[in-house]
Amino acid sequence: MRAAVLTRAGEIVLEERATPAPGPREVLVEIASVGVCGSDIHYYEHGRIGPFVVNAPLILGHESAGRVAAVGEQVTKHAVGDRVTLEPGVPCGRCEQCRAGRYNLCPDVVFFATPPVDGTFADYAVIHEDFAFTLPDSLSDDVGALMEPLSVGIWACRKAGVSAGDRVLVTGAGPIGLLVMQVALAFGATQVEISDVNETRLALAARTGATRTLVSGRDEPSTADVLIECSGHPAAVAAGIGAVRPAGVAVLVGLGPSETGELPLAKIQTQEIWVTGTFRYANTYPTAIALAANGRVDLEAIITGHYQLDSTEDALKVGREDPGSVKVMVHP
Amino acid sequence: MRAAVLTRAGEIVLEERATPAPGPREVLVEIASVGVCGSDIHYYEHGRIGPFVVNAPLILGHESAGRVAAVGEQVTKHAVGDRVTLEPGVPCGRCEQCRAGRYNLCPDVVFFATPPVDGTFADYAVIHEDFAFTLPDSLSDDVGALMEPLSVGIWACRKAGVSAGDRVLVTGAGPIGLLVMQVALAFGATQVEISDVNETRLALAARTGATRTLVSGRDEPSTADVLIECSGHPAAVAAGIGAVRPAGVAVLVGLGPSETGELPLAKIQTQEIWVTGTFRYANTYPTAIALAANGRVDLEAIITGHYQLDSTEDALKVGREDPGSVKVMVHP
Amino acid sequence: MRAAVLTRAGEIVLEERATPAPGPREVLVEIASVGVCGSDIHYYEHGRIGPFVVNAPLILGHESAGRVAAVGEQVTKHAVGDRVTLEPGVPCGRCEQCRAGRYNLCPDVVFFATPPVDGTFADYAVIHEDFAFTLPDSLSDDVGALMEPLSVGIWACRKAGVSAGDRVLVTGAGPIGLLVMQVALAFGATQVEISDVNETRLALAARTGATRTLVSGRDEPSTADVLIECSGHPAAVAAGIGAVRPAGVAVLVGLGPSETGELPLAKIQTQEIWVTGTFRYANTYPTAIALAANGRVDLEAIITGHYQLDSTEDALKVGREDPGSVKVMVHP
Amino acid sequence: MRAAVLTRAGEIVLEERATPAPGPREVLVEIASVGVCGSDIHYYEHGRIGPFVVNAPLILGHESAGRVAAVGEQVTKHAVGDRVTLEPGVPCGRCEQCRAGRYNLCPDVVFFATPPVDGTFADYAVIHEDFAFTLPDSLSDDVGALMEPLSVGIWACRKAGVSAGDRVLVTGAGPIGLLVMQVALAFGATQVEISDVNETRLALAARTGATRTLVSGRDEPSTADVLIECSGHPAAVAAGIGAVRPAGVAVLVGLGPSETGELPLAKIQTQEIWVTGTFRYANTYPTAIALAANGRVDLEAIITGHYQLDSTEDALKVGREDPGSVKVMVHP
Repeated sequence: MRAAVLTRAGEIVLEERATPAPGPREVLVEIASVGVCGSDIHYYEHGRIGPFVVNAPLILGHESAGRVAAVGEQVTKHAVGDRVTLEPGVPCGRCEQCRAGRYNLCPDVVFFATPPVDGTFADYAVIHEDFAFTLPDSLSDDVGALMEPLSVGIWACRKAGVSAGDRVLVTGAGPIGLLVMQVALAFGATQVEISDVNETRLALAARTGATRTLVSGRDEPSTADVLIECSGHPAAVAAGIGAVRPAGVAVLVGLGPSETGELPLAKIQTQEIWVTGTFRYANTYPTAIALAANGRVDLEAIITGHYQLDSTEDALKVGREDPGSVKVMVHP
Repeated sequence: MRAAVLTRAGEIVLEERATPAPGPREVLVEIASVGVCGSDIHYYEHGRIGPFVVNAPLILGHESAGRVAAVGEQVTKHAVGDRVTLEPGVPCGRCEQCRAGRYNLCPDVVFFATPPVDGTFADYAVIHEDFAFTLPDSLSDDVGALMEPLSVGIWACRKAGVSAGDRVLVTGAGPIGLLVMQVALAFGATQVEISDVNETRLALAARTGATRTLVSGRDEPSTADVLIECSGHPAAVAAGIGAVRPAGVAVLVGLGPSETGELPLAKIQTQEIWVTGTFRYANTYPTAIALAANGRVDLEAIITGHYQLDSTEDALKVGREDPGSVKVMVHP
Repeated sequence: MRAAVLTRAGEIVLEERATPAPGPREVLVEIASVGVCGSDIHYYEHGRIGPFVVNAPLILGHESAGRVAAVGEQVTKHAVGDRVTLEPGVPCGRCEQCRAGRYNLCPDVVFFATPPVDGTFADYAVIHEDFAFTLPDSLSDDVGALMEPLSVGIWACRKAGVSAGDRVLVTGAGPIGLLVMQVALAFGATQVEISDVNETRLALAARTGATRTLVSGRDEPSTADVLIECSGHPAAVAAGIGAVRPAGVAVLVGLGPSETGELPLAKIQTQEIWVTGTFRYANTYPTAIALAANGRVDLEAIITGHYQLDSTEDALKVGREDPGSVKVMVHP
Repeated sequence: MRAAVLTRAGEIVLEERATPAPGPREVLVEIASVGVCGSDIHYYEHGRIGPFVVNAPLILGHESAGRVAAVGEQVTKHAVGDRVTLEPGVPCGRCEQCRAGRYNLCPDVVFFATPPVDGTFADYAVIHEDFAFTLPDSLSDDVGALMEPLSVGIWACRKAGVSAGDRVLVTGAGPIGLLVMQVALAFGATQVEISDVNETRLALAARTGATRTLVSGRDEPSTADVLIECSGHPAAVAAGIGAVRPAGVAVLVGLGPSETGELPLAKIQTQEIWVTGTFRYANTYPTAIALAANGRVDLEAIITGHYQLDSTEDALKVGREDPGSVKVMVHP
């Protein structure tokens, strides 16, 4: 099979690899669509993300959908031909975190495109059958691939406890912020404001349901029950928490530039604000599929480009070079 | 002022009463629209609901909206002319339940149309300013009045923890069941099935968003994360809980015919189902207004009749006599 | 190895069996102490518990502790000689329930002494290394074995949300009720009342911390925040819920005589009581060991008898025949 | 009556004041014992705490117990002679925060010794009857007064969700830290470590139940499920959060020196730590009394000095001057 391999920072080479064989309870999936994530771009540019270092050739890509091409022994949940979306991290299922239902924090998770585990910018990938979810016919392969970033948004809204009638502030209108915004609406939020410096993205936000868009640093957000911070900018964190009502919640999704950050502690304390962050997601795929299949979110709206597998490097570059780019898809 | 007074079971008389004067922090509201609730009908027919007995003439009606006609001393939140909806129960604010945020369980609550407290089938009513909520211009008086039954639905969905992607079964398609169904959708539920024996009501349910309607006793519900029981029928309770998935929730809203009821205990225990009920609601009015103002629920859709104050008795009778009647409004 | 085998209802035969070999990530444990559970007695007497039917010879026993005698491949958490207590159910780790942290509801769990899975009334047993927990030296083998019923109590108190200063009513002073009572105290409850008809057991309850003991049917319980029902008697369920305060919680641990049961629905609804049940437990063993090791519970106090493996049948009979018997231990 | 009045920063003058008369539903309490709080000392030294500025003579003191000396109209819960402890903040009972059960965040709360509301370093004080709680005979007046700081500890443990078997790290062994530590034990925590630079206080911590004491900056804390930060030192916040396990909770009780503070955001995000603070408490007094009355906490152990009302200024000074001082009491 073909695979787009990160050979070193800044270089993607299309290589021939042996098609993997599915083991017991695993399925082989012919990949049809893969979304490019900011983490893919970061690995491509820097060869690492914090403690995760690419020391050997690595296949990137972890937002993926395709068709089951073969099944391993004991597989009961899928058959050849099933259209599926892939939850990219398979946890151990036994550790303290897994047992508690927090499998996103499993220290032994095997996660696509996280060194040294290969991802899905390739013709095929194998995955445990329980982490392949059947796609309804009404959902395209592209939408199927985007169940992954949609999961990030669902997890953030769950952590924040977003519910009907809530007022939500989303800071940062990148792919994640834009999805969080849609998800907040799908959770019933009736005031969803989103801020960014990129007015093209704000216009997209407005088209996909934002009740108000804010130019960062210029417009003041309204009081919010919940902040979901998706920019990673320290200033956005502080300003965002400033908008949260007493006893509200701030969920930090965007990773910042450094290990530590300045928070408005006096406000957090005297107003009993809850602050937390998210790391991936757990138990979100069925919800993601249900929301997409019922038209509660519009994922096609954020797709701005399509690339063939042999143009994966272009797909990784376009995000930086084109301010109008939001989410680009690679098609093996 | 005029008031439609329940003088004894089965008799409503239009009487002249002194217009009440608003005390400190109270507002006088000129009532424009009042929804007829099943409890009004029950008091009218039987003169009592369980331990609540009508021993003296009583003005019924507690789903109300209107305009502020006068304000008492120290009122700061409303001015004459404000359009408001009235949360009908004013709790003590000091007892153990109130302090814990469960003010719907306050033993000293003063609640419209609950003996001996008069309700709002009258030209005017007074209420504490904090329990009058300003209506946006986009919402009609009728819709404003229906913030009350909508609150019942919001409270049920909150108790059940309904969230995005959930599968909800609503048993009973009376006014409350129909609103619970709409609220569940507004909370993000993507499978909302509703059952009843009345096919006219099921057709209304289908028009207002039910993903499937079920004829009680004939159609099997799908597996649900949440049951919200709105019929009070013992058979519906048992069958409904039977459809709930392991670790799901059953919220019993409809009051049954007797103090006790048979539940499938073995299932509740071995599958760790949570069962509870609702009594009125707390902290729902802002959410109700936000959902209605944002078009997340369609309250006009359930209104089937309008009556003048001097026809209040007809309004109370129509529910029993016309199977097509869902929610009727009285206009003083 | 020797094993006490249930050959048919009412007959236990000591047999020679092949000592099992630990597979990958499994450990072989030389069993030192096994508590007799009501479910063992029920299988012995009736050959079934509800849908679980003993169709082939079965080794009973699932409350067990011992020493690691051999380790399989890839075992990293235990070494030969480690003293361990065994969590008797190993879930699949992949299904919807497992992923959500509710592994006690895993439909594919492999649980000791539940047909057709053999238990631990035997010289040896194998278990996944993650379900063997190291015992501190300060805890005896008997206490180690009782981590299992202690887990039942911990799970019930967690479900009920027992916290400091709570008032707890425990109905039924069998082994589980007595442990629930101690656990409630360890969770900080300051009023813990327990009821039974057996005054010997009530005396034991009083010695181990009950703030008040109640003769069932004679003494009225005080108002409680939480009911934990451990008798399975329908009358105790109804009376117990009657004692729960508004918005309180009732957790039904004891299984009753039939599939359904009569509950005080009007109270559950108008006072918004939460009712649920427990099925086994999840994530309790570390807590159980911590409570025992810190002296927060006294497990030796409930042990009333000791039997050798070849007297397992006597151990199973004594509970019925001796009203003073609470928890008896079998020692292979 | 006599009152110890803060006339300006650094000056307390004993004055004669008119004894207040209890209004409707209020009781007049003859004060027997008042604990000195850090906030009293701060007002005495600086004349302000953040936005709260002492612009006029103010009676300090808000940890108080005494006897009911007179009752106002409509009082039903207390009679003259009742021994009571006073919850010092009376919220409005009507605002959004109060209705939600978060009355500690009520913007209109009337709180003793918070400008311009006088406190209880005086012979008498009046309070709403619902905020006076009857003391059992077994609790001394001093202990009764300490229900207030005990409430701070209970609130912190509730926010943190401390439960049986938890591992808790308390940073700061001042009066609040020492009480939090005892409360954590009463909530069932089995590992409670506490850090400070003051070894006298650590010795007291060890005597009252700490499972380990840590010299700040020298000893490393063990992994904890929960951090309760009671020192306000920025270094303690960061180090404390560093010890929290994935998905653990950090509750910041101690106010720091500035409005903002540096937090380990990368850890909070990738390990999904929850961070919040506490502001006073809500619904804690019944629990506080239950814990003290049942011997679950030892409040006498932290009392290090007693002063008459005319020595209030000495009581306010001793905390700074004597490193062995923990909690001193003033007796009108």
